[in-house]
Amino acid sequence: MTARIIDGKAAAADLRQRVGQVAARFRETRSRAPGLAVVLVGEHPPSAAYVRSKIKATLEAGMESFEHRIPAETSQADLIGLIDQLNADATVDGILVQLPLPKHVDEQAVLTRVDPSKDVDGFHPVNVGRLSIGLDALVPCTPLGCLKLLQGELGDLSGMDAVVVGRSNIVGKPMAQLLLQANCTVTVAHSRTRDLPGVVRRNDIVVAAVGRPELIRGSWLKPGAIVIDVGQERVEQPDGTRKLLGDVAYGEAAEVAGAITPVPGGVGPMTIACLLRNTVVAAHRREGLPDPEGL
Amino acid sequence: MTARIIDGKAAAADLRQRVGQVAARFRETRSRAPGLAVVLVGEHPPSAAYVRSKIKATLEAGMESFEHRIPAETSQADLIGLIDQLNADATVDGILVQLPLPKHVDEQAVLTRVDPSKDVDGFHPVNVGRLSIGLDALVPCTPLGCLKLLQGELGDLSGMDAVVVGRSNIVGKPMAQLLLQANCTVTVAHSRTRDLPGVVRRNDIVVAAVGRPELIRGSWLKPGAIVIDVGQERVEQPDGTRKLLGDVAYGEAAEVAGAITPVPGGVGPMTIACLLRNTVVAAHRREGLPDPEGL
Repeated sequence: MTARIIDGKAAAADLRQRVGQVAARFRETRSRAPGLAVVLVGEHPPSAAYVRSKIKATLEAGMESFEHRIPAETSQADLIGLIDQLNADATVDGILVQLPLPKHVDEQAVLTRVDPSKDVDGFHPVNVGRLSIGLDALVPCTPLGCLKLLQGELGDLSGMDAVVVGRSNIVGKPMAQLLLQANCTVTVAHSRTRDLPGVVRRNDIVVAAVGRPELIRGSWLKPGAIVIDVGQERVEQPDGTRKLLGDVAYGEAAEVAGAITPVPGGVGPMTIACLLRNTVVAAHRREGLPDPEGL
Repeated sequence: MTARIIDGKAAAADLRQRVGQVAARFRETRSRAPGLAVVLVGEHPPSAAYVRSKIKATLEAGMESFEHRIPAETSQADLIGLIDQLNADATVDGILVQLPLPKHVDEQAVLTRVDPSKDVDGFHPVNVGRLSIGLDALVPCTPLGCLKLLQGELGDLSGMDAVVVGRSNIVGKPMAQLLLQANCTVTVAHSRTRDLPGVVRRNDIVVAAVGRPELIRGSWLKPGAIVIDVGQERVEQPDGTRKLLGDVAYGEAAEVAGAITPVPGGVGPMTIACLLRNTVVAAHRREGLPDPEGL
């Protein structure tokens, strides 16, 4: 069997186009664009690159981008002051604090300061709790993107067996909540799991989010399984070049799986598209409008 | 094999005694007792009985009990007014709104009004989110009691395979979070699960919380599994008497399991003990004291 390749770039382009249409209607009726503020603390180069692509995508979707680059030495109090200012700014619908933050800053204190209605990353405890309870919430972008890829591939997920490998707050745990809401039987596996190959093998859906390159082998998969690979680690090759690798051994897995996301070009593009989606949804909710359809 | 019976009554008595000791020290140092307010709306007889036993246990632990019985016709605004008053009352450390509420009241609106620091039921989205993220939280009493029974039986749960059958906000979902934090590989199964016997059979720990009497059969269990039965449904017998039944077919299960909670006398007593535990913990946190040890 050779797996279908799940084209995250195409799915993301499609979602971004629909977000753009919704943003255009919002601009017409509200006489302003949905606005996303991005806060980047310090000079961490990968973070700077992420922020650049987020800003570019925000503008391309016809939304307003507010960039706040502040020095690594900024005190926690000053950073919280900036968050308060963005919370109070009516033109800001979404606030994204690029992680990681410098070590002298308490990350939770900052994330918890963001107004939950503007928390487009979905990291605030209120949004985490609302997702779990089944209330309207802003949901973390990467697992939301994974869910959309799965639904695009499979339609209704009801009754399927799904495993999430990894239990981070940013991906693994919210992913499990989303799959449970979609009526999957959900298993969360992690570093303490005794028989990871055995656990993976009994599932129809495998979401890998551990950050360990090629941990999951092709021989671990149930034939026909749908594999979503969140990992993307830059690994030096024997010839000295560096290659982006996922958590799944792609070549082997593609022989066994029914469908699989490539790295790059799978989950990555969906994360940014879902950030735009969350921003335009937040804008609608903040204005008391019904959620835009089809996003 | 004949299963050990997990004595929830003894475990609850032990926990209540320790809570009583902590409450006594609190009274000495703070010159007041930890206080629990219970709100009962309407005349639902099982709710009234629960509330009576909660009040009795509160007093026995040397804590103060505030009882608020209000008529079923009370408006949502008046109920929320009462919650606000209890939130503002410094002698109240815990607020428990007995569920179910009358149909004209939006349950989430009321539960979300309770100050998260007094939310001894652990139902507020902030506490749900904090539990998921791994921050200090007030955790729902029934799953917390189940965890304590499991730890009493097994010690460290790390690496064990656990299944939670049922995905309610009150038991199933927080139970899964607690087991994940305890380093179990956790599966959540429910009404849409395709092969429930197969899922149950591969787990070392089974927590049943679906409210369907004797759904889980002895033949479904892995020999030696530890079984925690949250179900308690009153079912009419052929002779016209009514019997309290769990979600697990106890007689059969006791032949296969390594240990099992009886119904009654298993999980039930631990729920009230954990409510007292949460109240005394809330009192400490509200006073800026470190969490009492060993609870």
